[in-house]
Amino acid sequence: MSEILFDRIALIGIGLIGSSIARDVKKLGLAKEVVISTRSLETLKRAEELELGTSYVASAAEAVKDADLVIVSVPVGASEAVAQQIAPHLKPGAIVTDVGSTKASVIAQMAPHMPESVHFIPGHPLAGTEKSGPDAGFSGLFKGRWCIFTPLEGTDADALARLRGFWEALGSMCDEMDPQHHDKVLAIVSHLPHIIAYNIVGTADDLETVTESEVIKYSASGFRDFTRLAASDPTMWRDVCLHNKDAILEMLARFSEDLAYLQRAIRWGEGDKLFELFSRTRTIRRSIVQAGQDVDVPDFGRHALDK
Amino acid sequence: MSEILFDRIALIGIGLIGSSIARDVKKLGLAKEVVISTRSLETLKRAEELELGTSYVASAAEAVKDADLVIVSVPVGASEAVAQQIAPHLKPGAIVTDVGSTKASVIAQMAPHMPESVHFIPGHPLAGTEKSGPDAGFSGLFKGRWCIFTPLEGTDADALARLRGFWEALGSMCDEMDPQHHDKVLAIVSHLPHIIAYNIVGTADDLETVTESEVIKYSASGFRDFTRLAASDPTMWRDVCLHNKDAILEMLARFSEDLAYLQRAIRWGEGDKLFELFSRTRTIRRSIVQAGQDVDVPDFGRHALDK
Repeated sequence: MSEILFDRIALIGIGLIGSSIARDVKKLGLAKEVVISTRSLETLKRAEELELGTSYVASAAEAVKDADLVIVSVPVGASEAVAQQIAPHLKPGAIVTDVGSTKASVIAQMAPHMPESVHFIPGHPLAGTEKSGPDAGFSGLFKGRWCIFTPLEGTDADALARLRGFWEALGSMCDEMDPQHHDKVLAIVSHLPHIIAYNIVGTADDLETVTESEVIKYSASGFRDFTRLAASDPTMWRDVCLHNKDAILEMLARFSEDLAYLQRAIRWGEGDKLFELFSRTRTIRRSIVQAGQDVDVPDFGRHALDK
Repeated sequence: MSEILFDRIALIGIGLIGSSIARDVKKLGLAKEVVISTRSLETLKRAEELELGTSYVASAAEAVKDADLVIVSVPVGASEAVAQQIAPHLKPGAIVTDVGSTKASVIAQMAPHMPESVHFIPGHPLAGTEKSGPDAGFSGLFKGRWCIFTPLEGTDADALARLRGFWEALGSMCDEMDPQHHDKVLAIVSHLPHIIAYNIVGTADDLETVTESEVIKYSASGFRDFTRLAASDPTMWRDVCLHNKDAILEMLARFSEDLAYLQRAIRWGEGDKLFELFSRTRTIRRSIVQAGQDVDVPDFGRHALDK
């Protein structure tokens, strides 16, 4: 059992991320009270059935009253609405944070509404699965994963340290970054991969010469690896695309340029160019495994699971 | 222990696929003799150290003498050279097959050289991992995976049945297809995914604003899923690109067209279009899991492996 870090935590949004935080807080006893709020009454009811918190309210405004830590876990496009709702009711000295995948946009949406008396510290835990909703969350989701903070100028060092301590209690490794840089990094390591995955699955779905049942039947030869990302929450990803537009468009432009080069090499039978690219990408995989960011078992260890 | 299906099997090429076949044949006792041949003396020596066969010869011509089943497991670009080498030495009545990822090209390369007295039946087991070489193979690789045959006109039904029986003994499910259709199906379920994966990993590697160490550090947020495919054997994939050019270029054109549409939707903030695409791709993932072609655990079960 860890120590109590906050008397009262308010969780605004209780999907995959929010509910995983709730489970960890409960399991580790990090707070005396956990107030859960979400817009959908059905989801709120489900959170109560799952006993994720200590109280459940539909109104975000009511949820944040007397909370020492407020964690906003909603699709990034809903950040401003939430900020407007909670701002007048925040307790002086409270820490307000979020978990959004884009940071410049979240700051632009939330910061103007935050009263001076609270500590608004944007955050982004790089964790998740392709599942969504309160049932998809689990304790341990953040273990060994990075959590990136993009603190605003003049952020109180003690407040930041307390928030960092909270995420470390959940098992995260913490990092700090400029919001613009965060958005560029995430555009390449997360946003572009998801967009490409959604796109290729869409392309396959639209073919006339190859049936959908063939695509499904033979998917293990590569295609299925993309379908995991393409099964992620559509609302979340729509919002990410709309709220990290510039960085995503830049990465897409580079990707398309590189693909045109590769396509030309295929058309003109330039085997050397293909071999050169296909060789250097192997090194990156090795580094990712060495950095402990993926498992070193062939096929993601799916065979291990078969048995 | 299964019954002996062939007196003498010759394996030309002993990489991931060849050595997995060898391990299964040995484990299941499917042949009295297994002759292994590969161009690299170093690899041949390694195959012997691993005791993958009963004899080891550098010359493919020598290896196929008296063999009842010849399995060619080399990069598809080497098919013609192998066919030329083995053709004069094949035993009348022998079955000659391959495991190549493209079929029209392999047929064009091999069929003209095959004597009328042998049964040439092109095949393609849809199995593999991102690893390569004789050490990467393992018994059970083909279990529950599809093996597609693209028999030529006038193929002997008994020979096809014997070959099918061999792959079924290895645990494969068998299918038959027209070579051109095979190449289109594989272009979308396997070749395009690999090319896209190689491309995105290359794009990430070339960025100036995001460091390689950042890409590696934060790769778990999506990027790492692509690195598995991009770690596949470069020689094999160069050859696939060069030998299934038309189908691959068609799929690439469609993919790029769809990506341009998606990119435009992002640029113009068309959330509805994004949401529509991001929603329908979820269904395909569900079908793949239902068809038993992937494991139904979040994150490919990597968390299960962490513990």
